[in-house]
Amino acid sequence: MQLNDNFQKLQKNYLFANIGQRVRAYQAAHPEADIIRLGIGDVTRPLPAAAIEAMHRAVEDMAGADTFVGYPTDYGLHFLEDAIQADYARIGVDVDISEIYISDGAKSDTGNIGDIFGADNAVAVCDPVYPVYVDTNVMAGRAGEIAADGHWSKLLYLTCTAENDFAPQVPDEHADLVYLCSPNNPTGQAMSEAQLSDWVAYANREGAVLLYDAAYEAFITDGSPRSIFLIPGARTCAIEFRSFSKTAGFTGVRCAYTVVPKELERNGINIGTLWGRRQATKFNGVSYITQKGAEATLTEEGRVQVQETLDYYQANAKAIRAGLESAGFKCWGGINSPYVWLKAPEGMASWDLFDLLLNECQIVGTPGSGFGPAGEGYFRLTGFGTAERTAEAVRRIQARFA
Amino acid sequence: MQLNDNFQKLQKNYLFANIGQRVRAYQAAHPEADIIRLGIGDVTRPLPAAAIEAMHRAVEDMAGADTFVGYPTDYGLHFLEDAIQADYARIGVDVDISEIYISDGAKSDTGNIGDIFGADNAVAVCDPVYPVYVDTNVMAGRAGEIAADGHWSKLLYLTCTAENDFAPQVPDEHADLVYLCSPNNPTGQAMSEAQLSDWVAYANREGAVLLYDAAYEAFITDGSPRSIFLIPGARTCAIEFRSFSKTAGFTGVRCAYTVVPKELERNGINIGTLWGRRQATKFNGVSYITQKGAEATLTEEGRVQVQETLDYYQANAKAIRAGLESAGFKCWGGINSPYVWLKAPEGMASWDLFDLLLNECQIVGTPGSGFGPAGEGYFRLTGFGTAERTAEAVRRIQARFA
Repeated sequence: MQLNDNFQKLQKNYLFANIGQRVRAYQAAHPEADIIRLGIGDVTRPLPAAAIEAMHRAVEDMAGADTFVGYPTDYGLHFLEDAIQADYARIGVDVDISEIYISDGAKSDTGNIGDIFGADNAVAVCDPVYPVYVDTNVMAGRAGEIAADGHWSKLLYLTCTAENDFAPQVPDEHADLVYLCSPNNPTGQAMSEAQLSDWVAYANREGAVLLYDAAYEAFITDGSPRSIFLIPGARTCAIEFRSFSKTAGFTGVRCAYTVVPKELERNGINIGTLWGRRQATKFNGVSYITQKGAEATLTEEGRVQVQETLDYYQANAKAIRAGLESAGFKCWGGINSPYVWLKAPEGMASWDLFDLLLNECQIVGTPGSGFGPAGEGYFRLTGFGTAERTAEAVRRIQARFA
Repeated sequence: MQLNDNFQKLQKNYLFANIGQRVRAYQAAHPEADIIRLGIGDVTRPLPAAAIEAMHRAVEDMAGADTFVGYPTDYGLHFLEDAIQADYARIGVDVDISEIYISDGAKSDTGNIGDIFGADNAVAVCDPVYPVYVDTNVMAGRAGEIAADGHWSKLLYLTCTAENDFAPQVPDEHADLVYLCSPNNPTGQAMSEAQLSDWVAYANREGAVLLYDAAYEAFITDGSPRSIFLIPGARTCAIEFRSFSKTAGFTGVRCAYTVVPKELERNGINIGTLWGRRQATKFNGVSYITQKGAEATLTEEGRVQVQETLDYYQANAKAIRAGLESAGFKCWGGINSPYVWLKAPEGMASWDLFDLLLNECQIVGTPGSGFGPAGEGYFRLTGFGTAERTAEAVRRIQARFA
């Protein structure tokens, strides 16, 4: 009996457990404290009315013998595929129905995509980074061994710091798989057309595949590309992951999709066919009710409602960024993202700022070091709270630092 | 760039495509033909009223700021874990909440479970068998190469035929991972307490892990064990997969669960911890609405309604078995299962019987050879149709064969 030994290499992720522990200890010592949580990466606003109505109708369909729906097709139901295709068309991207693979989440897809690639590929990830990209490659044996500084021996790190405005730079080295996330979690920065074009050129030159996580694309407000497929050449080198989670508030009902262009081939093998086979063998489709709800968020009415929620979170993020900048913090994100990424005061580590904000302002955020070694000295706050509490948090920080 | 070369070894599954093609050709040539489909493995009856009501309420929860639910927890929401624990208690099985991992389907779980095991384990599967067990091991590199007879070089086959009443026998050889499915898909046979006890003894002796697929446990009517955990010693050697799909009609809304006992360890490592890490990294939980619906099927009211639907399918299956036996067929299943497995007339191959039933009776079934080499000469019919159409199908077969 042999276990997957790579699992033993995984570092136990203490980040959120550690945060919870410190918050509970503080609350116990200060029962009267009014703590504001801006560490949260989950949405909080109700679902759009169009989705609620569509899901009620879908539930009713499941109550009738003539309207009951059994197994959803492995790659998604046609009505939702059509709506996703139309959504891409609105931003000028032409996607074929057969290129769309609907799933239960971008976490599942960005995690499972590794199944179709060999174990010896060279993998590039940003630092700091969404931990799923790293952990799933550790599990698959592509990460090597962890060093004292927290870097894995076989991963190629694309360091993102204030010096490069948190934009991952094309490396001199070869990589086979490159994880990019734009707008980025945790830094909130969106990549420009020029930056993405550099990556598409790199991938086509190197024969690499870009694994492009666009889960936050709906938050883009400054004209940055909302899809990698807006970049010429991307169809021969990129897979795009999108989600209804952060855009339409679907974290609790689970719907996402992955687009693999027909032109994407390596070693003469079509990548979409591999992903389709993976999904058909290890996945059985997304709830009919969820897919009906997702479709409704892409109708004219639904899109207006989704935008209202996006505006709400974005107003929070902008308020955080403006408020913190006026208090002397250097900030990124918050323009194309619900996330604001900030530099801790000179010489202060991420966890020091965490403790300071908790103890002196009763505010919970996320230490940047939790997202990778290069996140040390940075900190993440999110716009997913209520407007009132967010404004109160900003006031407290300003009172402490301004 | 290296792809997962094991994917190239996968045989394209022509089974259902081939069936569809032949049915379409027949329909085109005989537009007036009234075809009855008894090949279907999907449920067709509406969801229980209790689940419909609960899901409407859950949709409404998502419409309110105070009741909205974001990310479900990775391993399931507590109310459903509690209901599953109570459901096990009703059959005398004691399961801890921490041992329950709720997911979007038994196909996902039986497919993904391989992630936590090494690539060099010896894997045993039944023949005939649910294709997912084989295909996911091919993908993981555990199956070796396929031979001309359809067997994979590294898999240990547990041949199930009429001679052993389709009960997989404990082999002389060592295996590390053993897939068992009871009641079985496709044969419809449930394993007895004595047979399961043999397997538990084998696994504990060999250090093997039993991957026990109990997706059809609710169809058991003859007192056969409804859980592997009813067998003493199973907690140190078995993982059990269960599902709301076939029992409560949830194929279209997606909910299942896997139970990994705390005592299950190999090489000093807790297996549940590995599975938990896999799920937390590559999965983000099941729709809140689905989990509320699933919980409702386990209430007193819900269980009565579920039983009515099970009775309906089971009456169909029994009618098929009785009708075919009276027409001279040798049959298995249909007692603890919605599936009836039958022997084609002497010398007739599975596909020959398929063509005969389609051409002469206008009935669609599933050739047994599609489930593995030992399925040749057998055939599967299912009780998932309507009572009226099922009765009509039986009449046609009797008219042709009796």
